[in-house]
Amino acid sequence: MHAEIIAVGSELLTPDRSDTNSLFLTARLNALGIEVTRKSIVGDNLAAIQDTFRAALERVELVVASGGLGPTEDDLTRDAVAELLGLRLVRNEEIIRAIQARFQSFGRTMAENNVRQAMVPEGATILANPRGTAPGLWIESKQRIVVLLPGPPRELKSMFEAEVEPLLARRAPELRLYHRDLRVAGLPESDLDQRIAPIYKTYSDVETTLLASPGEIEVHFRIWSADSAEANRRLDELERHIALSLGEYIVSTSGESMEQVVGRLLTEHRATIATAESCTAGLVAERLTRVAGSSAYFLGGVVCYSNEMKTAFAGVPAKMIETHGAVSAEVARALAEGIRRRTGAALGIGVTGVAGPGGGTPAKPVGTVHIALSAKGNTVARGLMFPGDRERVRWQASQSALDMVRRHFLGASESRGGAVRAGIGAATKRRSSKV
Amino acid sequence: MHAEIIAVGSELLTPDRSDTNSLFLTARLNALGIEVTRKSIVGDNLAAIQDTFRAALERVELVVASGGLGPTEDDLTRDAVAELLGLRLVRNEEIIRAIQARFQSFGRTMAENNVRQAMVPEGATILANPRGTAPGLWIESKQRIVVLLPGPPRELKSMFEAEVEPLLARRAPELRLYHRDLRVAGLPESDLDQRIAPIYKTYSDVETTLLASPGEIEVHFRIWSADSAEANRRLDELERHIALSLGEYIVSTSGESMEQVVGRLLTEHRATIATAESCTAGLVAERLTRVAGSSAYFLGGVVCYSNEMKTAFAGVPAKMIETHGAVSAEVARALAEGIRRRTGAALGIGVTGVAGPGGGTPAKPVGTVHIALSAKGNTVARGLMFPGDRERVRWQASQSALDMVRRHFLGASESRGGAVRAGIGAATKRRSSKV
Repeated sequence: MHAEIIAVGSELLTPDRSDTNSLFLTARLNALGIEVTRKSIVGDNLAAIQDTFRAALERVELVVASGGLGPTEDDLTRDAVAELLGLRLVRNEEIIRAIQARFQSFGRTMAENNVRQAMVPEGATILANPRGTAPGLWIESKQRIVVLLPGPPRELKSMFEAEVEPLLARRAPELRLYHRDLRVAGLPESDLDQRIAPIYKTYSDVETTLLASPGEIEVHFRIWSADSAEANRRLDELERHIALSLGEYIVSTSGESMEQVVGRLLTEHRATIATAESCTAGLVAERLTRVAGSSAYFLGGVVCYSNEMKTAFAGVPAKMIETHGAVSAEVARALAEGIRRRTGAALGIGVTGVAGPGGGTPAKPVGTVHIALSAKGNTVARGLMFPGDRERVRWQASQSALDMVRRHFLGASESRGGAVRAGIGAATKRRSSKV
Repeated sequence: MHAEIIAVGSELLTPDRSDTNSLFLTARLNALGIEVTRKSIVGDNLAAIQDTFRAALERVELVVASGGLGPTEDDLTRDAVAELLGLRLVRNEEIIRAIQARFQSFGRTMAENNVRQAMVPEGATILANPRGTAPGLWIESKQRIVVLLPGPPRELKSMFEAEVEPLLARRAPELRLYHRDLRVAGLPESDLDQRIAPIYKTYSDVETTLLASPGEIEVHFRIWSADSAEANRRLDELERHIALSLGEYIVSTSGESMEQVVGRLLTEHRATIATAESCTAGLVAERLTRVAGSSAYFLGGVVCYSNEMKTAFAGVPAKMIETHGAVSAEVARALAEGIRRRTGAALGIGVTGVAGPGGGTPAKPVGTVHIALSAKGNTVARGLMFPGDRERVRWQASQSALDMVRRHFLGASESRGGAVRAGIGAATKRRSSKV
């Protein structure tokens, strides 16, 4: 079964807004075995809307549209589709009552223009909208299904799940989409692909997509199948092979984010953690605490941008900064050890680097970052070089710091740490400016 | 002049990827006086691509497309358009040489399939691609212009600016789009609109859009005009009226972000700043340091999640936490004053709150945040209540903290602070759990 998605709204033809509903709709339609073959975005113009629906209905059995169901003169989807399909619009008293009740619950009376929203093409099924006034419509005509949904994402999502999916599930074919999503950290995209392509290429029934973002790559495996057991068996088998090939580079296979994985490992090991950050300036602490309940393991952190603060907050000897420079393996170690000592945490993270755009030197160019992880009796440090602008360098540094914590618990050897793109030689005697 | 945008690529019909090129293209086309009337997204399928181009060319004079120009079998845009327009594809030796040179610069030899990229419809203008191998194409046929651009955003953007804009500028009509973008903080969208709607509605020639995100609203004014001086006069006048109505709620009129505005004010006043954060956990520090050169005014900060750390890092008396609770105006003040004292900064920020989802109490529900700003001889604190989930509460708290710094320099009265959605009564004696 094939579908097209149409988004209606002149605001979607400006530089400010994009249609995000179609990503949600595509995921849900795919899961029901329905492939999306085209997406169109059209303004609030009766002829253009009709023209778009007409062309789509010539091509596919199912058209899912969002937007243009509101109460104003600009909301034309209902009128356009009814006219196109030759259906009379009938005033629906039940919808009127529902809208009136909604207004009353806010202590207001229904504005007259809301009556537009109660005009229903004859024979259409009304889709309830508990989160807004505009009901959705399910229209069957000439072997075709047209689903009209409201534009606001929260209204559209809840309506699709509650009202449309059950109706579609009955029509949808046996073929469904099954998927596995892996997160991988520490490998550049080309290296990752080189490792796993020989594996996934032997699974010609599985569609593989690599989605790279700084410091992390998502690997999506998708399979269309009429046989749920067989599809899951194939995906499990592929996932096992990939896991053997990637080992500790795999962050999660369950959708867990890096922060969530680190939080889970800290919780499982009843360990606490504290941070001392220079170039990442709070980003590692902020990411650690994105997870609800992180107060159980995150004790606190310091952001020490200036050399003085590195000494005052984390006890880094001023002499050490002078000798090795603020951006050095030594200072990263001292930050990690200092914050661990001061907070009494089981683990301490220290990060120092040159995020740019200024502050780089030939010996320590922009992108140079030293990260250390201190545990009882052992501190490991890594020198890294990240490409990109200030934001990207900081993000990748925070990702590598969290990944060091993750690998610490896996017992993986730090020396195999894959995030190292270019090793950095021993810290020089040159003093690099602070970030 | 009207244009349609077509994005080609099967990956754009999955739940993972959306077409972002069209937002950039729309902004640039609008600036040239060209209105975008439809956007289509189609997969790597010859018939579907041709069908989409055919329909678009029946409607508008200009079609701008992205994607499908690569070297693989899946890249069909060139073939589809040439066939549709009845143009022969001719091998272009200059492109071959350019691709070979590009491969050589990486120390590689050109793969044979790259020859596809050198096939050019007869009569087409070649658009150079310094950032990739796929050249773009400008094709004029039957009173229509077709522009084919590569899919990767950085290749598309630089090619559009360098090659397409000069060609379009010669054809484009006199009518151009002029705009002003304001950022506003501290007012809910409905309150903001109530204030400014009476003003912008008298400017019927100006299109006004409000784009709300947590803690900030962008107000965009756009005007289509053939008279640049008149358009700018109208926009300047409207902006002045809006500025009078909104006063200190306006963060910037030049596109500057909150972080940039705060950074500029700190620099102008030669002031330094430090942070002591509980619920925002480093977010305020991280945002302050997003600005390049922020080391000139940001001294450092502490993230004190636990009560012990509030005492150890910022000198908050343990007794005070016990009496008033960690989430209280008193503790926010003590954090701000403590960090200012410890770092010697001119300004200290203290933030404490309940970000959720746990930790709320009837007296201090999730969303309760106290923020203090300490300056020499004066500390002000505000109690705020933010809606939304953990991420949203933290973000809005960081936004309000930065806004307090901004207003401090404007000399605006803190008591008029508009971000207050609901005042919070005096701190109770109940101890609320830490965030």
